Amino acid sequence: MPEALYTIGLDYGSLSCRGVLVRLNGQIDAVADFSYPHGCFTDALPDGTPLSGSWCLQHPGDFVLGLETVVPALLSQSRVDPRQIIGIGVDFTASTVIPLDTGFRPLCENPAFASRPHAWCKMWKHHGAAAQAERLTEVCRARGFDLARYGGKISPECLIAKVLQVFEEDRAVYDAADAFVEAGDYLVSLLAGRPMFSAAMAAAKALWSKAGYPGADFWGAVHPELAHLPREKLADRFGVSPVTPGERAVELCPDMAYRLGLQPGIAVSAAQMDGYAPMPALGVTSPGQAMMVVGTSTAILLLHDAPCPVSGVTGCLPDTGCPGLVTYAAGQASVGDCFQWFADTCVPGRYAEDARARGMTVQQWLTHLAAGLAPGKTGLLALDWFNGNKSPFGNSRLKGMILGLNLKTKPEHIYRALLEASAFGARLILDTFTRAGVPISSVTACGGIAGKNSLLMQLYADVLGMPLRVSRCGQSPALGMAIYAAVSAKERSGFRDMFSAAEAMRSRDETVYQPNPSAHRVYDALYREYAALADAFGNGRNGLMERLGELLFSPKV
Amino acid sequence: MPEALYTIGLDYGSLSCRGVLVRLNGQIDAVADFSYPHGCFTDALPDGTPLSGSWCLQHPGDFVLGLETVVPALLSQSRVDPRQIIGIGVDFTASTVIPLDTGFRPLCENPAFASRPHAWCKMWKHHGAAAQAERLTEVCRARGFDLARYGGKISPECLIAKVLQVFEEDRAVYDAADAFVEAGDYLVSLLAGRPMFSAAMAAAKALWSKAGYPGADFWGAVHPELAHLPREKLADRFGVSPVTPGERAVELCPDMAYRLGLQPGIAVSAAQMDGYAPMPALGVTSPGQAMMVVGTSTAILLLHDAPCPVSGVTGCLPDTGCPGLVTYAAGQASVGDCFQWFADTCVPGRYAEDARARGMTVQQWLTHLAAGLAPGKTGLLALDWFNGNKSPFGNSRLKGMILGLNLKTKPEHIYRALLEASAFGARLILDTFTRAGVPISSVTACGGIAGKNSLLMQLYADVLGMPLRVSRCGQSPALGMAIYAAVSAKERSGFRDMFSAAEAMRSRDETVYQPNPSAHRVYDALYREYAALADAFGNGRNGLMERLGELLFSPKV
Repeated sequence: MPEALYTIGLDYGSLSCRGVLVRLNGQIDAVADFSYPHGCFTDALPDGTPLSGSWCLQHPGDFVLGLETVVPALLSQSRVDPRQIIGIGVDFTASTVIPLDTGFRPLCENPAFASRPHAWCKMWKHHGAAAQAERLTEVCRARGFDLARYGGKISPECLIAKVLQVFEEDRAVYDAADAFVEAGDYLVSLLAGRPMFSAAMAAAKALWSKAGYPGADFWGAVHPELAHLPREKLADRFGVSPVTPGERAVELCPDMAYRLGLQPGIAVSAAQMDGYAPMPALGVTSPGQAMMVVGTSTAILLLHDAPCPVSGVTGCLPDTGCPGLVTYAAGQASVGDCFQWFADTCVPGRYAEDARARGMTVQQWLTHLAAGLAPGKTGLLALDWFNGNKSPFGNSRLKGMILGLNLKTKPEHIYRALLEASAFGARLILDTFTRAGVPISSVTACGGIAGKNSLLMQLYADVLGMPLRVSRCGQSPALGMAIYAAVSAKERSGFRDMFSAAEAMRSRDETVYQPNPSAHRVYDALYREYAALADAFGNGRNGLMERLGELLFSPKV
Repeated sequence: MPEALYTIGLDYGSLSCRGVLVRLNGQIDAVADFSYPHGCFTDALPDGTPLSGSWCLQHPGDFVLGLETVVPALLSQSRVDPRQIIGIGVDFTASTVIPLDTGFRPLCENPAFASRPHAWCKMWKHHGAAAQAERLTEVCRARGFDLARYGGKISPECLIAKVLQVFEEDRAVYDAADAFVEAGDYLVSLLAGRPMFSAAMAAAKALWSKAGYPGADFWGAVHPELAHLPREKLADRFGVSPVTPGERAVELCPDMAYRLGLQPGIAVSAAQMDGYAPMPALGVTSPGQAMMVVGTSTAILLLHDAPCPVSGVTGCLPDTGCPGLVTYAAGQASVGDCFQWFADTCVPGRYAEDARARGMTVQQWLTHLAAGLAPGKTGLLALDWFNGNKSPFGNSRLKGMILGLNLKTKPEHIYRALLEASAFGARLILDTFTRAGVPISSVTACGGIAGKNSLLMQLYADVLGMPLRVSRCGQSPALGMAIYAAVSAKERSGFRDMFSAAEAMRSRDETVYQPNPSAHRVYDALYREYAALADAFGNGRNGLMERLGELLFSPKV
């Protein structure tokens, strides 16, 4: 009997990375994680140089340290012979962008640049490049570039917006940078010992497609000196073409193999975006399957076999999640953080005491109380736009609302109304897909809140009127990367493609929430009210929420 | 120099009565109060007989005990010679209705009836007569009876609705009752030693006008056996015509004079409704003057020289407040109780601790924090319909709403938005009057909240864009009755009418809040948003709030 084979998946999140060692039958034999020692810089650089406003930087050394800590920890935990490990894959937040010197070293590690903020790694949620994103959007529109796959506009989080910000704000750093790369690509390149770029990231964050980057006329319209940006500072600089995760593997270089305790020559997958990585791990690999990652906010990814115009999607990209399929991305801007805001801001001390007496958090106690209410018995209807609306309206200036309040309203009524609003918001997005001709056959939820709040999951099932699969796998992004790695190692794993690898290795540790028919009837009526209210305040004609925001930010009277 | 002359004013509220001894120059020389020993019965009668639902009863003996306690207390406190006291007046909540036997004794004091709930005094807020009020409204409409002066419908709080409830639900009590009288009329009749009825109460609560009660055809349409109700059970039973407060005084009878320590023969004013009593005390006696009593809810009374159709008024009655003038009544159903609901239900423990550490209530601390915010800087807009809307929509099924919520919203933002909503709601009512051709020249506020929350008063001035006079007189209803008493004693007081008495005796202890012009500009814009939102949800076309209420009260799913 041949010895079991394994792959390693690594999931690089905002503040830590997690790794799993997975057998090709899907069994997770070791889990390890590592918090970035430097966290993220929002106020000042390590040397004290102050940062302004919406900046958010990271230390690229933390990412390498993560590799060198987590991989050996997986090996020592599992005692698996490294010769049984046949591949490795990494996902990363995106765009988290590192300027590199000609030696492929982060520019910020050169003491001459250590005090220049733009030499550092810009985290995905660095929002300093808003003006540049608007410029890029304008150029796209003026030149008839199809923005549908980007949700109609270039996000300030994109690699190219961040590069443009460096160009405009610190020309010395821009000129000194040999290239600007996604942090995921940086790690994969280190593993491979040569530059390697993710086609998923390049497509989602740098306007790349199978035909390549936009041409010199496009970049020249952004700025005459940027006409040759792709071949001067992006993947084209290295004469390599971006690779889809799980495809056309490269080999682990001897140097990194030695440092990590792995065998040289094993397969290295191209990097994946962290939001997409859970899809194979949850078996979301067929057209019509939707995945909801329910956390602080909710990301919704949906597979379909063709691109199709859908209002309010933030992405619509071929080959990013599954080869041959289009992944639609949409989202709700405020979910778990809204529930936490409520628990922190709107709940009297006696609730906190009652929760403490039961060894519960305030949210757990509110959930317990809210679970005792029947559908429709809060008397309330809320709009879940506490951080704006991402989909379907794409309007960050929209605000939250609670309607139906009266002198008998209790905190648990409002809490339940907020949970329901989140479910209505999800249904509004899914209905937008369905109406646009993109069908949905199943919905799988994962993420921190999905595992924590079973009332919320039951509400989703009742509101959607369909079964909701909720994954109990706490490591689905890392497991997804182990699956991509197994596909990359197809000669040894025997998986002919991502579909067969996902079928063999995916997590089946899940709870299925069945919709309650009578609850669904009530929620169907309430959802119609929600949709009408959302349309009234979200369609741009009313504009009240936007005007309140203008007043809020106008000069003090 | 002649000795100073005095009158006594008594204000009978829901749970206690207060009295003042006032010199004819307005100086208050003594104040006394008395809490009703029996409070009000909502669950059971004194003998344990259970009460259902929305019942609210009182013990009439408490009211007499109040007279016998408060008047002697005023005398002993002030050491004024009773011969210097020339009149007495009483206001009372209305309709608080007592069934009397042929000896003018409350039926409930007869042991044969003590276990029958309908034999007891029904408090103004007893809402058991809702179905009867609807019946009466239908009969009025069917017969073309002008309901404009009653706000378009008969209130379940009215004397006649309460009488009809007794007739339908306990025929034995109805038959045994020689008359049904307002508690205020009961007390005044005891003082006078003969039946005396208030024209203000009869007009507001029993369809009486100077032409008398509606005729037998009207009452016969309510029920054939009630065709002669006025002459069988109301004022006509005693062959007396109701008297306007301050007019055509009767004399204090020797028996009561002896019991109270007063001189027989001094003037007794007809009773006034407690909501109207403060008007002369605050100098609200001319057309265009409005009075707002800001407490748990807000009552708004406005004087004008003619009746005029205004949408959403709850009353429009000639001669009730001031002779020769029409008093319009409108109101906001939830003001102080909404702020208290918020402080009790929606504010985290750390706010309660911070308040305690400063020796403040939670509301005082919230007010302090909210006062630090500039107009428009909450980012919020609220609808103040936490207990429905009384004026201008007259729809108790409307609900509260908070719009503009986001993850940075703090309790003091919401609290200020609720205060602002209350001011917007008041302006909406005043604007409704102005648009209907009933001008407003000045606004005077009084009541518990008016004296307590100066931020709220400043917001009213800023939102209304006009100076707001806020009375600091804590005894304005009782002072008002002392003024009515002085008019009734016109031979000795020398006041030719209510206007001259009010001018001499009214309280001038007030604060004037001036509108801040720049705040008014911001609030003008916000008020237009409020008015549009109120129209969208309150005009009956949207119906969302009403449908949420139906769902709330529909059978459990």
